[in-house]
Amino acid sequence: MNVHGTPTRTLWRAGGTLHMIDQRLLPHQFAVVALPTVEDTARAIEDMTVRGAGAIGAAGALGVAQAAALAPDDGFFGAVDAAASRLARTRPTAQNLFAGIAAVQAAVAAHTDPRAARAAALAAGDAWADADAAACAAIGAHGASLIQDGARVSTHCNAGWLAFVDWGSALSPVYAAHRAGRRVFVWVDETRPRGQGASLTAWELGQEGVPHAVIADNATASFMARGEVDLCIVGADRIAANGDVANKIGTLKLAIAAKHFGVPFYVAAPTPTIDPDTASGAGIPIEERSEDEVRYTWGWTDDGRFARVRTVPEGARARNPAFDVTPAGLIRGIITEKGIVPATPEGIAQVAPPRRPTG
Amino acid sequence: MNVHGTPTRTLWRAGGTLHMIDQRLLPHQFAVVALPTVEDTARAIEDMTVRGAGAIGAAGALGVAQAAALAPDDGFFGAVDAAASRLARTRPTAQNLFAGIAAVQAAVAAHTDPRAARAAALAAGDAWADADAAACAAIGAHGASLIQDGARVSTHCNAGWLAFVDWGSALSPVYAAHRAGRRVFVWVDETRPRGQGASLTAWELGQEGVPHAVIADNATASFMARGEVDLCIVGADRIAANGDVANKIGTLKLAIAAKHFGVPFYVAAPTPTIDPDTASGAGIPIEERSEDEVRYTWGWTDDGRFARVRTVPEGARARNPAFDVTPAGLIRGIITEKGIVPATPEGIAQVAPPRRPTG
Repeated sequence: MNVHGTPTRTLWRAGGTLHMIDQRLLPHQFAVVALPTVEDTARAIEDMTVRGAGAIGAAGALGVAQAAALAPDDGFFGAVDAAASRLARTRPTAQNLFAGIAAVQAAVAAHTDPRAARAAALAAGDAWADADAAACAAIGAHGASLIQDGARVSTHCNAGWLAFVDWGSALSPVYAAHRAGRRVFVWVDETRPRGQGASLTAWELGQEGVPHAVIADNATASFMARGEVDLCIVGADRIAANGDVANKIGTLKLAIAAKHFGVPFYVAAPTPTIDPDTASGAGIPIEERSEDEVRYTWGWTDDGRFARVRTVPEGARARNPAFDVTPAGLIRGIITEKGIVPATPEGIAQVAPPRRPTG
Repeated sequence: MNVHGTPTRTLWRAGGTLHMIDQRLLPHQFAVVALPTVEDTARAIEDMTVRGAGAIGAAGALGVAQAAALAPDDGFFGAVDAAASRLARTRPTAQNLFAGIAAVQAAVAAHTDPRAARAAALAAGDAWADADAAACAAIGAHGASLIQDGARVSTHCNAGWLAFVDWGSALSPVYAAHRAGRRVFVWVDETRPRGQGASLTAWELGQEGVPHAVIADNATASFMARGEVDLCIVGADRIAANGDVANKIGTLKLAIAAKHFGVPFYVAAPTPTIDPDTASGAGIPIEERSEDEVRYTWGWTDDGRFARVRTVPEGARARNPAFDVTPAGLIRGIITEKGIVPATPEGIAQVAPPRRPTG
């Protein structure tokens, strides 16, 4: 997608160097960091220079490719394995990270000659990133059919291109419709406590020229009541086999409001987000994060510093579940790269067949 | 209610001086300001040193009483009238303000002797403040019957004692139950964009020793889904004749979630909040406030300053409706000083009879 009018990906590899947008500085500053070593890449994942399931997966894949590009022939396989282990220790629960790393490791393991293995790793890393972008583009093509000219779309958190290599999940249909010349407006939930809607989604939409307004999470139902929301599209962190969806905290409250007002509620995600081994949302563990994310708000001060302010009394307690589970019954459909399917066991099985022991 | 263990009202009069808690500094600093002139009182209303319907009404009543205390016998009636006009210009839409001012003006108008009028004004001003506190205490007594031992109550914004002279509306039943020795826990919605839950409600509850946790507004439905919310109690800015309730933005989204999960949803308000002349919520105008309230968050910096941080891209647009309307059908009951009534035309008429031309 566009940054200052120039097509840009969230991250990419050039030789033995990884480049990525420093998402910690957005929306206040746009900077691309160059990471000359695998250790640099690992630290960039750890410190959230890069975040978002698809983007982290690509960082893992490209990180192993980077290791292959940098490792000498002598000791090549050991060096790549060590790099993969280091990268896998960066975010312990990121499913896509492990998948991206494993895919490039498999390409390496298919060879015994270091030079052939290196070439395979570079190709596999780039192919992983391209496939992520292509899946998101396909989500856009399918999802754009839901967006009429003049549509007002509500979204939550950031499931845009910054969370992937390009295009994004929930925002991809918006971008596709916008580029097709349809008028589309986006209600951007600010998405407390971390505010990824206010910071990342608003920035993405602004760069792409899509009209939008940031609103307090509290306000979405009020605009629905006035008939000013035509549909909701959100992303997903994990989708269970029955169609239940775990996503950023507040997705559930939004989905309930959408149901109340008859606003169609869609989830957009590439099929690797579906976990056929999890029967329902009840089986998805919900991470509870630091109370300080609720107690403090981070942003840009008037004198140009990135700082936090405390909004609660000193010592006040807070609770901070990072995700919630939206039951399948509240979801009109799931937009995947393979098409739009109902949030039912049958719909899910169409695009992500249950895993069976091979024999 | 208690501040540092000492019973304290939001505002009070001593001779010709008004004293009030400076609510702009909470929860970071507790300070009582002394206002020696009516002009000081008027400015304190304008700059939101005092806020909340009941507290503003009392500031109007006590402000006219202050004028009477300070005015010399010579020119007494003109001075009181001028003070009343000045006070009435502070907050153009505050219903309670005008009512408080008018009540004390009426006491003055019943006399022709300045000294008798002064005595009547002082008595009427203090009586107005006492009546506000008494009504809120009665709301607490009625509402406490809804709070079982161990109850987990969700609330939104600040409808506590800081919004009135004492006790508050939504929080009064909580305080009454807590003082009666029942265990009660409060889920405090932070209430973006202005954050009155995070700042004022959390501070009040902390001072009174009521266990609570501040949560992102996004999180309430998630705790309802886990069965950890037993009831909701919120305040009201205006109640229509059919039981529709205008209150702080986000009340509607909360009420819809409560309905979805079968959590009883109550509104607590003194009967002057009821407007029998407004047939339904459709007739209640919704104020849209500055975009900057969404773009910025105010709080305390780590180095002890009160400052704002911008959370959105520079120049990003925002929308900021300050209130929303919760339809009567989502409300289990309205807790008033006269008892708990259903949110129906009949229930409303029980405690606030329709106004009829007298003849």
